[in-house]
Amino acid sequence: MDMLAEKLRKIYSVTGADALLIESDYLRRYLIGFYATDGSVILDGESCRFVADLRYYEAARKALCGSSVEVVEGGPREALELVKPYQTLGVPFAELSLAGAKRLQDGGHTLVDCMPALRAAMMVKTPEELGFIQTACTIAEDAFSALLPQIKEGMAEYEVAALLEYEMRKRGASGTSFDTIVAFGANGSVPHHETGKARLKFGDPVLIDFGCKYEGYCSDCTRTFLFGDDKKHEKFKEIYAHVLEAHLLVLEDLRAGMTGREGDAIARDHLRKYDLAQYFTHSLGHGIGLLIHEHPVLAPRGEETLADGMVFSDEPGVYLAGELGVRIEDSVKMENGRAVSFMKGNKNLIIL
Amino acid sequence: MDMLAEKLRKIYSVTGADALLIESDYLRRYLIGFYATDGSVILDGESCRFVADLRYYEAARKALCGSSVEVVEGGPREALELVKPYQTLGVPFAELSLAGAKRLQDGGHTLVDCMPALRAAMMVKTPEELGFIQTACTIAEDAFSALLPQIKEGMAEYEVAALLEYEMRKRGASGTSFDTIVAFGANGSVPHHETGKARLKFGDPVLIDFGCKYEGYCSDCTRTFLFGDDKKHEKFKEIYAHVLEAHLLVLEDLRAGMTGREGDAIARDHLRKYDLAQYFTHSLGHGIGLLIHEHPVLAPRGEETLADGMVFSDEPGVYLAGELGVRIEDSVKMENGRAVSFMKGNKNLIIL
Repeated sequence: MDMLAEKLRKIYSVTGADALLIESDYLRRYLIGFYATDGSVILDGESCRFVADLRYYEAARKALCGSSVEVVEGGPREALELVKPYQTLGVPFAELSLAGAKRLQDGGHTLVDCMPALRAAMMVKTPEELGFIQTACTIAEDAFSALLPQIKEGMAEYEVAALLEYEMRKRGASGTSFDTIVAFGANGSVPHHETGKARLKFGDPVLIDFGCKYEGYCSDCTRTFLFGDDKKHEKFKEIYAHVLEAHLLVLEDLRAGMTGREGDAIARDHLRKYDLAQYFTHSLGHGIGLLIHEHPVLAPRGEETLADGMVFSDEPGVYLAGELGVRIEDSVKMENGRAVSFMKGNKNLIIL
Repeated sequence: MDMLAEKLRKIYSVTGADALLIESDYLRRYLIGFYATDGSVILDGESCRFVADLRYYEAARKALCGSSVEVVEGGPREALELVKPYQTLGVPFAELSLAGAKRLQDGGHTLVDCMPALRAAMMVKTPEELGFIQTACTIAEDAFSALLPQIKEGMAEYEVAALLEYEMRKRGASGTSFDTIVAFGANGSVPHHETGKARLKFGDPVLIDFGCKYEGYCSDCTRTFLFGDDKKHEKFKEIYAHVLEAHLLVLEDLRAGMTGREGDAIARDHLRKYDLAQYFTHSLGHGIGLLIHEHPVLAPRGEETLADGMVFSDEPGVYLAGELGVRIEDSVKMENGRAVSFMKGNKNLIIL
């Protein structure tokens, strides 16, 4: 039995459903390894079928030829027909719409939630998935290095984002993993600043939160640096140092077996020593995979236990509203019981 | 009463619910004009509240200051608390997850579907929305013109996509409206080809399906052209001519009051005259707005009546599997009872 068949059987077997019906794009991609904007995966104990319409049928057959996935031509109606023999259907309650659920219930099906099984499986990455994420991270980091010498006074935030995205794209990324954030000056104090038309001035702190996709998998990275040092940056430098300490401490102290809450506390407790914890207004990290926000959650409310193969962000930040913001973020993986960054460069403060 | 308040009151009043609760990002954006990846909009007959967490609170307050939307700090739990007084909640059945629905039902709420009201409102664009879409289309078209002279033999599909996306981004687009499709040679025969590593050869047909976002609104455009004419393109040129005729005939003959099915038939019937209708394997068009696929649907199953203010794609295509594909697409709007393209350039066959 190949690895794909084994993965499918494992997920199927824990749900207790007669069959699984998956119509959400990233879950479909996870199950069969083929991306399409539409289509249905029907998985039972014997087979896995991908119901694709004419836009995807030919490509899917080619991509899945020789795998344990059978490609069937059709749309949602054909999929509904194909699941008729199954009384109990496993569907992802967090992803299936209420409208979609009603359609299945009207067909007499009993629905059970297969999202916990999918989430648990997706949380622990295979070597192949780790390889894709590594490539997505390497592309992002290389693109950032290529961007730095191109940054000039007077550029707009969106122009810097355009250049960075181009550098990622031409290195083979299929796109960004989320809207790139470029924040000049005090804009960095808004954690989710919308990249705009502000122009770069000498002495501005610059915060860039960016990532790309490779084979569907995401990278996530944030760098904060100074565009020239106008010698008014003592406070910024001090905060930068503490955020960097918190970021590195996580790589140092995090261990398999800890909960997401305990992981988050490593950074939060460190910032608390300098009275900065109240300015760390978000979580330490989130799982990364086919989605930019997955499990596990590293936050005060994070109860999942961290284990080898998990991938998440390590992103402490400090934000003084209207004044400044510093965030330092790597994508990291759990390996041999420790957190290991996918990023290679050092994160000492850069002054352009 | 300002326009926003009027729009909100109109949507609220037709749902028959005590309040609307909206947590889907594009619907939230539509209702309050502010984009955030998380948050809840609570709309009743008296007020509209946006519940935003600390990542968005500051930015939302600034953006919505002076509008009829009140910004409240909180997360999903606070939103759940705030809707407690309302027995019947209007939620979008097509967007709310089954898990989200269960949470509300467990709280004793009765759910009614507000998606039809939202869909009907969103389908007819305001002048402001039409302006955003026009800008998104102009950026896309200008970027394409800037791309053409940069295309060289030996470039990979993803490199062409990278250049085009950069040209859109530096003209002020916030990103792509979907994954750019660049297909060389026979790859164009797969309607949703995944942009890959194929390299451009002299004589290749090139199909590029692309679009960008401006202020959240999408553009959608497809161009097919020849990279050098190796004199083996008689069939390609013939098909191109008929697809272009079909595309232009839609602009010529479409009228307000027709259904989406009748619109689709204009192109399909024309292609049928040349025995090409069976190779037109998708719909003529889809609505375009905050999402790249909205209503109305212009397809054999399209029952919506076309009316002024609607925006959709006009994209006939012909695909000969493994051989060639031609698609020509503009984003168009209904104005004074006719379909008017947002794109200005002519679509005669380009031979680079």
